[in-house]
Amino acid sequence: MDAEQSFGLSPGNIDQAIVLGIMKSAGNPRISVRLWNGNEFPVTGEHPVACLEFLSRRAVLKLLTAPSVGFGECYSQGLIKIHGDFLAFVNEVTRAITRKGSHQFYLPRLKSDLHALRRNSTRRSKYNAHHHYDLGNDFYRMWLDERMVYTCAYYDTPGATLAEAQVAKLDHVCRKLDLKPGQTVVEAGCGWGALAMHMAEHYGVEVKAYNISRAQVDWAREKAAARGLDNRLEFILGDYRSIGKRFDRFVSVGMLEHVGRANYRTLGKLVKRCLKPEGLALIHTIGRSHPSSMDAWILKYIFPGGHVPSLGEMMAIFEPNRFTVLDVENLRLHYARTCAEWLSNYEAVADKVSEMYSEEFSRMWRLYLAGSSAGFQSGTLQLYQVVFAHGTNNRVPWSRKYQYPGSFGRT
Amino acid sequence: MDAEQSFGLSPGNIDQAIVLGIMKSAGNPRISVRLWNGNEFPVTGEHPVACLEFLSRRAVLKLLTAPSVGFGECYSQGLIKIHGDFLAFVNEVTRAITRKGSHQFYLPRLKSDLHALRRNSTRRSKYNAHHHYDLGNDFYRMWLDERMVYTCAYYDTPGATLAEAQVAKLDHVCRKLDLKPGQTVVEAGCGWGALAMHMAEHYGVEVKAYNISRAQVDWAREKAAARGLDNRLEFILGDYRSIGKRFDRFVSVGMLEHVGRANYRTLGKLVKRCLKPEGLALIHTIGRSHPSSMDAWILKYIFPGGHVPSLGEMMAIFEPNRFTVLDVENLRLHYARTCAEWLSNYEAVADKVSEMYSEEFSRMWRLYLAGSSAGFQSGTLQLYQVVFAHGTNNRVPWSRKYQYPGSFGRT
Repeated sequence: MDAEQSFGLSPGNIDQAIVLGIMKSAGNPRISVRLWNGNEFPVTGEHPVACLEFLSRRAVLKLLTAPSVGFGECYSQGLIKIHGDFLAFVNEVTRAITRKGSHQFYLPRLKSDLHALRRNSTRRSKYNAHHHYDLGNDFYRMWLDERMVYTCAYYDTPGATLAEAQVAKLDHVCRKLDLKPGQTVVEAGCGWGALAMHMAEHYGVEVKAYNISRAQVDWAREKAAARGLDNRLEFILGDYRSIGKRFDRFVSVGMLEHVGRANYRTLGKLVKRCLKPEGLALIHTIGRSHPSSMDAWILKYIFPGGHVPSLGEMMAIFEPNRFTVLDVENLRLHYARTCAEWLSNYEAVADKVSEMYSEEFSRMWRLYLAGSSAGFQSGTLQLYQVVFAHGTNNRVPWSRKYQYPGSFGRT
Repeated sequence: MDAEQSFGLSPGNIDQAIVLGIMKSAGNPRISVRLWNGNEFPVTGEHPVACLEFLSRRAVLKLLTAPSVGFGECYSQGLIKIHGDFLAFVNEVTRAITRKGSHQFYLPRLKSDLHALRRNSTRRSKYNAHHHYDLGNDFYRMWLDERMVYTCAYYDTPGATLAEAQVAKLDHVCRKLDLKPGQTVVEAGCGWGALAMHMAEHYGVEVKAYNISRAQVDWAREKAAARGLDNRLEFILGDYRSIGKRFDRFVSVGMLEHVGRANYRTLGKLVKRCLKPEGLALIHTIGRSHPSSMDAWILKYIFPGGHVPSLGEMMAIFEPNRFTVLDVENLRLHYARTCAEWLSNYEAVADKVSEMYSEEFSRMWRLYLAGSSAGFQSGTLQLYQVVFAHGTNNRVPWSRKYQYPGSFGRT
């Protein structure tokens, strides 16, 4: 130990102390930290998962004042570098932060309640969707599967590829909906139309699919025409709140995250109005094990207006409208794997993304995909599929055997 | 129309108007009403399901002042008679009342919140359990299946008998728990021990089963000894709050109804403490599609201290304790059928029950069993099986295929 270290008052030691303070509030992840002056030290233990390098003191200050937004911005702008396996680093930090906050309940719930006050109008929803989904079909085509499914896959066999697991997910949803040929289905928030096309093609149903992203609807219409499905499948450029008529089935996969808590009851009312008395409905959404607000960086840069609900918060859709919740399945670990596969595809094209957009944009998306995978892996995020029906519907399935093709065949 | 009816002021017409007013507030069920003077008239439509006879004006007044308690007391005391199929009558009235109140949400929720203020202490819980479960094993043996399973059965084939469906339920619960030989299981509220014995005998696990009803524990201990299971199965006369140690599995079937909302978080904390990090837990309970207080008559005569939660209310067990809800299944219609079978068994011994206890007691239990079946049939009541795990447990099952023996065999 040299004299400078023993006094502990040099600027270098103060920087290190501040960084260790930040790391402590992040639950002391098993990483090492390198400063702009070359100093490197572990945060906890001997075998760091990866090394986090601060390229300037400014990055430390940004993390100190706004940990989540600060980290996201610094990483995107190149003020912070990660040496080693990027996903392993993000997983480790997320795990540490999650463990650290695992005793908290009321404060995160209060934040979620406050967040719920913000209502997504149809106009605001359009802006939010445009921000994310209208980045260009070419962008998503580079790292999603060929069907462009941008929601949790279902790995029903351990060796399934991403593309196989996405088809398995489409079938899993269709089976849960107990689709029968000739039925009418409405889909709220249909992405690039993969589920709508799958239902129309393989289950013989008539589908009306709603979406407010023009880029996605244009793509979906073109594909459906090419596959000769446009006679029983209609893509409508419109908000879920504009759904009219009544249908045998209601399905929404990956839209609820954008609806916002203030509109849950409205969404439930809509389903109540548009679902036939003996119909079945399914909502597939990212969720949480307990109420919490969105990550500040995600909200600012990735999903403006988004909210990820706990199961209890989701009850605002069902309970005031007297729906019966029939079935809830949690596919959290499937989404951790899905996001990890997207990230792996993304890494192969990240340089191209930098050229198309910018270096900053490219890094931002890497962090978003890794952070999402880590969120599901750590239990910060969940993935719920909820099947529900009108409370007075006595023709609901007796058991869930019909969902498992080992016993029952596909329609 | 005669003169008396046209003036509408005779005592007979006033009685009829009051009765029709009561029936209107009950949603105008398709029944007919007969008064003590022999007057009979339909409430709604032409084909009444059954006839409700008031044997005195006192009965009308009791229904007017306290509909639920009034009806239960009048029926039990013989001031009211039902002519025709009793279950069909109860189903019809329950259906009508449920439809009538189907727009309400905030008032029932407020009532449930107020009810939640009442806390079941261990002493109070003992009294409540004694009231219901210590009526004598002989009483329950007359109309339950031979295993004495007093919870919702699982009819996995349409033609299953009650006894078969109860075994299927035990297996369904065991499969959901993914039991492996040698694991340790704690059961909170074990009734007459059917599940505990089934787990120990067929799944090779070690079971500690808690119950505060002495009559049930005595029975269970005797049966377990006779079946040679007492080396890996212990029945403990004790409250769920006294569970110590850590276990691979936690299971509770039909106890939550007695816990009371005020203790949900305590129950969750207990599971948090006694479930190993990679453990699985299952709670099977009567529930509701939306918050509501217990029926006043049931609370007074059948289940003092009871509360039947909505799924949202149940989240007080899981969310503050950061459990991950993995799987929810609703078996409402199975319980409607189970209760109907219990009622049918009960009718065959109702006279014997009158001799053993009293005519009033016998009628009270008929109404309770019919009312329960009707509650599930109408959607007033639900039956939830919830599988959950610690939020940090990443060794949870990947899919639910393991629950369906078509694909995977029994351990």
